[in-house]
Amino acid sequence: MSSYADRLAALREQLKSEHLDGFVVPLTDEHMSEYVGSYAQRLAWLTGFQGSAGSAVVLPQEAAIFVDGRYTLQVRQQVSADEWSYQSVPETSVAEWLKDHAPEGGRIGYDPWLHTREWVKRAKEALASRGAELVPVERNLIDKIWADRPEMSKARLAVQPDEYAGKSSAEKRTDIADWLGKQHADATVISALDSIAWTFNVRGEDVHRTPVALAYAIVNSDGTADLFVASEKIGPDVRQHLGNGVRLHERYEFENALSQLGGKTIAVDPERAVSAIFDALDKAGAKAVALRDPTILPKAIKNEVEIAGQRASQVRDGAAIARFLHWIDEEAPSGEVDELTASDKLESFRREAPELRDLSFDSISGSGPNGAIVHYKSSEKTNRKLQRGELYLIDSGGQYVDGTTDITRTVAIGEPTDEMRDRFTRVLKGHIAVASAVFPKGTRGTQLDSFARRPLWEAGLDYAHGTGHGVGSYLAVHEGPQRISPATSAQAGGDEPLQAGMLISNEPGYYKSGEYGIRIENLVLVVEKRIEGAEKEMLGFETVTFAPIERRLVVKDMLSAAELDWLNDYHRQVLEKIGPKLSGADREWLEQACAPI
Amino acid sequence: MSSYADRLAALREQLKSEHLDGFVVPLTDEHMSEYVGSYAQRLAWLTGFQGSAGSAVVLPQEAAIFVDGRYTLQVRQQVSADEWSYQSVPETSVAEWLKDHAPEGGRIGYDPWLHTREWVKRAKEALASRGAELVPVERNLIDKIWADRPEMSKARLAVQPDEYAGKSSAEKRTDIADWLGKQHADATVISALDSIAWTFNVRGEDVHRTPVALAYAIVNSDGTADLFVASEKIGPDVRQHLGNGVRLHERYEFENALSQLGGKTIAVDPERAVSAIFDALDKAGAKAVALRDPTILPKAIKNEVEIAGQRASQVRDGAAIARFLHWIDEEAPSGEVDELTASDKLESFRREAPELRDLSFDSISGSGPNGAIVHYKSSEKTNRKLQRGELYLIDSGGQYVDGTTDITRTVAIGEPTDEMRDRFTRVLKGHIAVASAVFPKGTRGTQLDSFARRPLWEAGLDYAHGTGHGVGSYLAVHEGPQRISPATSAQAGGDEPLQAGMLISNEPGYYKSGEYGIRIENLVLVVEKRIEGAEKEMLGFETVTFAPIERRLVVKDMLSAAELDWLNDYHRQVLEKIGPKLSGADREWLEQACAPI
Repeated sequence: MSSYADRLAALREQLKSEHLDGFVVPLTDEHMSEYVGSYAQRLAWLTGFQGSAGSAVVLPQEAAIFVDGRYTLQVRQQVSADEWSYQSVPETSVAEWLKDHAPEGGRIGYDPWLHTREWVKRAKEALASRGAELVPVERNLIDKIWADRPEMSKARLAVQPDEYAGKSSAEKRTDIADWLGKQHADATVISALDSIAWTFNVRGEDVHRTPVALAYAIVNSDGTADLFVASEKIGPDVRQHLGNGVRLHERYEFENALSQLGGKTIAVDPERAVSAIFDALDKAGAKAVALRDPTILPKAIKNEVEIAGQRASQVRDGAAIARFLHWIDEEAPSGEVDELTASDKLESFRREAPELRDLSFDSISGSGPNGAIVHYKSSEKTNRKLQRGELYLIDSGGQYVDGTTDITRTVAIGEPTDEMRDRFTRVLKGHIAVASAVFPKGTRGTQLDSFARRPLWEAGLDYAHGTGHGVGSYLAVHEGPQRISPATSAQAGGDEPLQAGMLISNEPGYYKSGEYGIRIENLVLVVEKRIEGAEKEMLGFETVTFAPIERRLVVKDMLSAAELDWLNDYHRQVLEKIGPKLSGADREWLEQACAPI
Repeated sequence: MSSYADRLAALREQLKSEHLDGFVVPLTDEHMSEYVGSYAQRLAWLTGFQGSAGSAVVLPQEAAIFVDGRYTLQVRQQVSADEWSYQSVPETSVAEWLKDHAPEGGRIGYDPWLHTREWVKRAKEALASRGAELVPVERNLIDKIWADRPEMSKARLAVQPDEYAGKSSAEKRTDIADWLGKQHADATVISALDSIAWTFNVRGEDVHRTPVALAYAIVNSDGTADLFVASEKIGPDVRQHLGNGVRLHERYEFENALSQLGGKTIAVDPERAVSAIFDALDKAGAKAVALRDPTILPKAIKNEVEIAGQRASQVRDGAAIARFLHWIDEEAPSGEVDELTASDKLESFRREAPELRDLSFDSISGSGPNGAIVHYKSSEKTNRKLQRGELYLIDSGGQYVDGTTDITRTVAIGEPTDEMRDRFTRVLKGHIAVASAVFPKGTRGTQLDSFARRPLWEAGLDYAHGTGHGVGSYLAVHEGPQRISPATSAQAGGDEPLQAGMLISNEPGYYKSGEYGIRIENLVLVVEKRIEGAEKEMLGFETVTFAPIERRLVVKDMLSAAELDWLNDYHRQVLEKIGPKLSGADREWLEQACAPI
């Protein structure tokens, strides 16, 4: 295996042979995915960086890697300072940096299948101010030098039956066709992988922990569709399920299909479709209209069947969590349980459910100071034993065939300090403030975010992540467009009104660097709230995650009467829903863990 | 006096003679002011509409008036449906409406001194889709037909001495020059009237209730400035105060001065400068760089002297309010006090202070159902007596030479209903939640807005206005850029981080249409908060308005212990600050009004 220095040198050789003065390497795929298949892990291959977001620019004499605040430390551990300079976003950006560093009059290459049109526009403008040029490449330069690059996954697609999807693919396509009619458009390109999985009621195994398949789709105004996916991935069951309304093509035929759309009006999502799609439509003489992917909102608003599936998967998941927490309670005080053993144990409990297809993300299993690393991933190198007097944080989830879960619990091993209990109680107060919020229709998640922070703010504390993200239905564990976050931009989901049926996480936290981390995460469903005498149509949340919240970390005197009622009522529900799934010592443990305070 | 129908007909004649197919009439002036001088009240003259925001479009066969939700009822009362169609913004806009209604291929006139460049761009695009054209006019068409149009105010400017301004104009101009250096710009055009008043430490009388003077300014990178203001308005005191660093020109010379800037780089605020300014710079061959007016932030962040002045003016103002509330308490139950008498009485109390220069806006004096009209202005026609069993809302403020005030109190006349007390207490809880908030540096007002609404939301209620607006220092009572509002857009101030020294109102409310209105408004100053063990630099609010909050409307049991403490502590401070200013029966009344609950 070549060294990272060798890889960088090889890329620079490649630049030379293609008469380029630089190349941009983002961490995404042709679908603007958050998580990508191994074939698309170009940034990690080139630099060694293992984080989930970042990009790099390589010039003949300089190379820079761009990461956000979550990865400031990690990038320094994983990427050599000899070859790379570290850049922080949003303080700078690839475009801003190129403005100062690109060789004057130089040609900087980019892969148009890995960037949005907006990114290309901005980078072009930035380079223009240097007299330099942004140049699309025919084939990604990394792919040319990455000898043992993994192939794209050949995993077969699976049918997501209507009994879980709640709406047939034909009905969904009819809705899209109706929308196209209103937009006076002939077709829409759907390139986001979870949108495709949702539209066609299929699932895949091509992206780690996310049940999607590598594909593109064009849905037409007559309700038919063209689906571009490797034919070897389609079995007879899926073929039959898709039916006559869906024409199947090889994935590599997609670009050519775009070139056939001349004269037509095509709706394309500028945030989710890559620049190359717009380029191909422009070249074909099609009229690309920038509109949000029409599946985004119906996908986010769960139907009754999806909600029932979510509830069923939560009971299963809560039972696994409860058994795990009992196990931790018994075993961890010995000092012999480590982070990896613990997360393996939790996975084994989850895997007992036949409905489980996968985890919904790599578990974050952090003991003591490792719990303070928000996106921690335990490895043989960092693995630590759970120890008395410390906190243990476990953020995990399951991909069940009927629902995706995501839950974080923080527990005390042995006796916690007063400070830990104070901080935990503040996080809990914030969690309850969100869980019990009622708000008028039209309210955006941004307007609720501070409810979660206020108890921490009162002590001069805060946490550096959002309070909640949308969650899919046996799909992506991070799903837009709604969010609960201080971010106000439309792109960050800050502008999206919450609507009944949306599923979202409620996960305030507190992290004391080098000491401990706390997070309490449940999923909540947006529901209509009837209030006597109300003048507005009101919404609120129904918590759908059920597992005990660590009572030993709660300072009762810090809770208001209403907050204490919430906690006791929540534990009553946990016992009611999860109790019947447990027996023997597990059941006894749960009863104690859920006892009123 | 001609009828509104005659005026509309005259405008249509004028259209014909200028070969136009329409004309746009906004409610603003050449400075994009919120409140405008009588000479610029073109919309009111044409249509009869007396609201503070709106616009109109006149076509040969159609005429439309555009207002927002605040004025939906009022526009129907004041503007004839025979001639005008009523349009609601933001559901539609002048540009959107023109897209459907402009004659195909038509020429729609606009006055480039009354619109932003962005507005012109959008309207042009909208009209282009109709094959129609947006045409700048040399002189506003209304001005040509408005025979008795008032002249511009000739009021003389007054010096705002450094003892109130806290910073000399020369120092402010040096700061602007430093900023220009950083922006690589040669000069900046300042056209917002309050920015000019602040920069030059002068005040005027040209806009109702706002102490500004009609002028333009160009501040240069050497710290000198060119000030364009009618010479008859400048006395020797102001001339001496301005000194050699400020070259005086007639206001009408401004456009010509812009035409001399060819080859220079000029910073211009795209939200505050009108299109004509950009047009003139473009024509001259100057490079206009769109940057926010550099005085906006330093004007919003009050210096120590301005803060001291604000405190002094608040004590005076609170004493006047207390005497007024005592008077209401004595006189209103007789049923003989009406809204106009009441606001006159309050004004007379305020005018006893020699430092008072004007009111800061027309008082909103609303009894019973009139209190539910958020922007109510009592008139002979709507005037009502204050009656037992009703609420009375008074929103008012003073322009003192050392500070601008803005306060709302709601009081019960006779015995209030349980519902009124419940609603008042919810509004109070929201007010306290904002007043007592602590938050990390970088927090925007948008993140605090929901604190004020939560107690109302819990009962299915809300209010349809923002929670707080910035306030000037003996300047505009509505001053940006900070706000406390659900709006997230940068333009609406939603994106502006709060900073220590900013002055802002805290005014949640509740309005029951046809019955009563409640609002509790104090001004608060953003201050640094030291918290034991804090990990973040924290900010909070210090309430600077002092006047009793109606104890008879408070339901004690609905307040938490912390809320009750806040209220009692606030009243203790009111008594401490205002008490010494009162004597006899007024003082006795205040003691009772401030007694602990």
